[in-house]
Amino acid sequence: MRLIIVGGVAAGMSAAARARRHDESAEIIVLERGSEVSFANCGLPYHVSGEIADANDLLLHTPASLRAALNLDVRLHHEATAIDTAARTVTVAGPDGIEELSYDALVLAPGASALVPPLPGIDSPRVRTLRTVGDAVDLRQRVTQGARRAVVLGAGFIGLEAAEALRHAGLDVAVVELAPHVLPPLEQELATLVTEELQGLGIRVIDGIGASAVEHDADADTVVLADGTRLAADLIVLSVGVRPDTRIAVDAGIETVRGAIIVDDRGRTSADGVWAAGDATASADAITGTVRPVALAGPANRAGRLIADDVFGSGSGRRITQPLGTAIVRVGGLTAAMTGANRVALEAAGIPFRTLHLHPNQHAGYFPGASSIHLVVHIAADGRLLGAQAVGGEGVDKRIDVIATAMRGGLLATDLIDLDLAYAPPYGNAKDAVNLVGMVAENVLNGRLSLWYAADLEEVSGSALILDVRTPREFAAGHLPNALNIAHTELRERIDEVREASAGRPVRVLCAAGVRANIAHRILVGNGFDSASLSGGIQTLRHWYGADIERVLTTEGAFA
Amino acid sequence: MRLIIVGGVAAGMSAAARARRHDESAEIIVLERGSEVSFANCGLPYHVSGEIADANDLLLHTPASLRAALNLDVRLHHEATAIDTAARTVTVAGPDGIEELSYDALVLAPGASALVPPLPGIDSPRVRTLRTVGDAVDLRQRVTQGARRAVVLGAGFIGLEAAEALRHAGLDVAVVELAPHVLPPLEQELATLVTEELQGLGIRVIDGIGASAVEHDADADTVVLADGTRLAADLIVLSVGVRPDTRIAVDAGIETVRGAIIVDDRGRTSADGVWAAGDATASADAITGTVRPVALAGPANRAGRLIADDVFGSGSGRRITQPLGTAIVRVGGLTAAMTGANRVALEAAGIPFRTLHLHPNQHAGYFPGASSIHLVVHIAADGRLLGAQAVGGEGVDKRIDVIATAMRGGLLATDLIDLDLAYAPPYGNAKDAVNLVGMVAENVLNGRLSLWYAADLEEVSGSALILDVRTPREFAAGHLPNALNIAHTELRERIDEVREASAGRPVRVLCAAGVRANIAHRILVGNGFDSASLSGGIQTLRHWYGADIERVLTTEGAFA
Repeated sequence: MRLIIVGGVAAGMSAAARARRHDESAEIIVLERGSEVSFANCGLPYHVSGEIADANDLLLHTPASLRAALNLDVRLHHEATAIDTAARTVTVAGPDGIEELSYDALVLAPGASALVPPLPGIDSPRVRTLRTVGDAVDLRQRVTQGARRAVVLGAGFIGLEAAEALRHAGLDVAVVELAPHVLPPLEQELATLVTEELQGLGIRVIDGIGASAVEHDADADTVVLADGTRLAADLIVLSVGVRPDTRIAVDAGIETVRGAIIVDDRGRTSADGVWAAGDATASADAITGTVRPVALAGPANRAGRLIADDVFGSGSGRRITQPLGTAIVRVGGLTAAMTGANRVALEAAGIPFRTLHLHPNQHAGYFPGASSIHLVVHIAADGRLLGAQAVGGEGVDKRIDVIATAMRGGLLATDLIDLDLAYAPPYGNAKDAVNLVGMVAENVLNGRLSLWYAADLEEVSGSALILDVRTPREFAAGHLPNALNIAHTELRERIDEVREASAGRPVRVLCAAGVRANIAHRILVGNGFDSASLSGGIQTLRHWYGADIERVLTTEGAFA
Repeated sequence: MRLIIVGGVAAGMSAAARARRHDESAEIIVLERGSEVSFANCGLPYHVSGEIADANDLLLHTPASLRAALNLDVRLHHEATAIDTAARTVTVAGPDGIEELSYDALVLAPGASALVPPLPGIDSPRVRTLRTVGDAVDLRQRVTQGARRAVVLGAGFIGLEAAEALRHAGLDVAVVELAPHVLPPLEQELATLVTEELQGLGIRVIDGIGASAVEHDADADTVVLADGTRLAADLIVLSVGVRPDTRIAVDAGIETVRGAIIVDDRGRTSADGVWAAGDATASADAITGTVRPVALAGPANRAGRLIADDVFGSGSGRRITQPLGTAIVRVGGLTAAMTGANRVALEAAGIPFRTLHLHPNQHAGYFPGASSIHLVVHIAADGRLLGAQAVGGEGVDKRIDVIATAMRGGLLATDLIDLDLAYAPPYGNAKDAVNLVGMVAENVLNGRLSLWYAADLEEVSGSALILDVRTPREFAAGHLPNALNIAHTELRERIDEVREASAGRPVRVLCAAGVRANIAHRILVGNGFDSASLSGGIQTLRHWYGADIERVLTTEGAFA
């Protein structure tokens, strides 16, 4: 039995290691065109920053260690250039020339390549990607050798990590994002927090605009943006996305979609005897069903492992699961994390949803160090959890992991109420942030709570009475023009004022974070009003508008 | 509609707050015999330590704030002394005398009282419990007024928190536990880590022995243990357990079990119009079915909330869930957490199980600050997750919460492989600790991995060849007598040495944590051996034996 694996990083190495556990005698060959296998892609930015001082720490294994432990035949600098699926052979170009290898089973895990936009000057030697240990070492060298100014093109996960790493290393850094905000998969009302954090780190954030050219000079390059802005740069990091590296699969007649290899839930391609996994393959999203490549390490590793099970015919019956796309990034002191679908994906897929905004503490408020987790959760009318995102300090990763687990377990939003989560004051609350999501969801689903949204502010301002139930002191520090201010604790006695001011119009309530407005909403409903509570309160309104909030709030006295 | 609630802390206040959201006009009376409502029980130790400087921070609400926000009629120092379930009245003793209140619905949330063992001298004024804000204030005062020596009786959650708090405040502290180890619900191989941490904090740990008397003197008390040990103490904290406070329920003919009020899954008691929730009620354990009181804040709050839904007839159909008993405690720099059943509970319930031990890092090993999470997971033969415990630094709470969520969602152990958890180097691993639990579970369930346990060491030593596959250097630093040492990377070439040394006996493999032994196990099986791998490796062996490990391991040369 000869198993050939093309690509020796996440999916490929997982398949190889697992294969050996199945069969002590199989010949297992790993072809890797690069100069490392099994390296820590996700750790690369931390070498650029210097946090991981020794690049060797990013090499998890070497061909020699893999030979010793697992009897794997790992061949670096060997590129698979063609596949004959009928003859079951792979053509391989290596340092000693070209050879043809026959296989009983072939696993394609070639990964993805950095997208290079067709801009004039993009081939400047100062433009680098951050995909390999070599890239990281090169960037680190430029940093230690005096580069002072960096421009990062693309503010996705890797772009932000690269920007922070370069800033951490002392450079002047600008990050340029074509999409309307940084970290485009994140919702707008959370992304503004990331923008602020980046700015707090001293990073210049330019969003909603793309680069149009790179001008190369002996001293420095200049990145020219579409609006004419010119950014001098000693180095430029390109991180605008990746493209599945599937030319040999396509040439071999293996079916692809949007350039990614189509696989079934056992990782089998359209060709007999050929499996594929990782960034080069297409997956159906667990929530929307959209078929697309998902470039995440976890799903890649797990698919590689299941493929080895299938190759050796000893599958457990388990199938490759559809990814939720759970992802996380550290930005300064913030963590931003997400699982499931976001607003754009849900709208594109035509899935109706409601959105909840909460700002609970990560642990007991009375315990030192309490801080807010800003949560955005999308739910379906039947209570299904569609997606969740969070930004904050401590505890963001835990809440997203818990919700991702609940989604995988098929729990409904209301089931989150009953999760038995570990509570002591340093860790959470008796009603944990996730339990609270469930409680708000239940109130929304059964109609006990009606919400209005920051996005609807203009429309609401024109048609409803806005009732601000914060204290007069909070109100004075910044409020919506024309809002009526009655603290929630006085609302029962002053309900006639609301009746008069609303003059038959609906009442749209708000407070700082939503808790008091929800109480007020129930009082209003109990008194016969058409009422709704601002989802996430003034906090979410601030986050929604970001730097533009100044034109929305006033400190002038209200009309009442 | 008049709703009377007896007890104004977790379950009672949750019911009251929720009730108001259902009905703006209901009369809601909360009777609390103590001098606070809605206080932070779980925060009390942190006032004793001084971490929460102001005891007022532990008061989440006051009767006045609850009146203002929720129109609740909260009566402090009012004790319900009798219930007439036929007449629907409660007799109440308050500062102004005794009165009889009629009710339409009655919610009993009286909580539990500290167990006071019948020891001579236990009524000494130096003996305190830590159940109320008053207790915490009193202890804090004694600490600031010069108490130097403390003895904590009972090393459960509150006992350990009290011990650490007192030590943090500078006292000499001894903690005495009758059970064989501290934190009795924790498995032995994890509890030794907690003992070491306590000792590292300078706390004296005395386990496996109880107190027999308290001798009271003007200068100081003396705690006398069953073996004659005498511990001088300026203050003594009693935390040996709690007992449901259900006398009035019993007197009213409401059914109880083991002293706890029996409720159905809507919180209804045996008496019409009477509900109950919280520490005074009995719950069926989600895993073992054992019926017992569960003194946890989360389940209490949630049951109170659901009862309000049921009282107002607008239940969502959701029922009170059976608790998993998820719990957590901070001890020095360690976190110890658990969910589901432990070994003792499973054995008592007659549920067969296998145990997995893992020591994964909380985040990428190459990222600065990596540390181990010591995990113990019990699974059933059908793959059901029965219980999980973890001790370590960062990330313990997250993993237990994720597993608790998976259990609530009915996921099998093997489903943990496919959880899409958030991965970036500061937060986890591409194969997260929880994913790894799933992978090991799968290998055990399908027979690809056979385990042996630290508990079986004596038996295994007498009947099998022990093969240590760590490096010679690791081996020399401490190993089992008579173990054969062949590094896992050399095992394939040296397999004949194993054949010779084993002489037909089974081979029992071990390494540091289990990973290399699992690789070796597959090589041995591939070569026809009867093999098994030590669950958790030498690390778990060390943890199992704790301070006794010195008599188990040797640094002498092995026989081969």
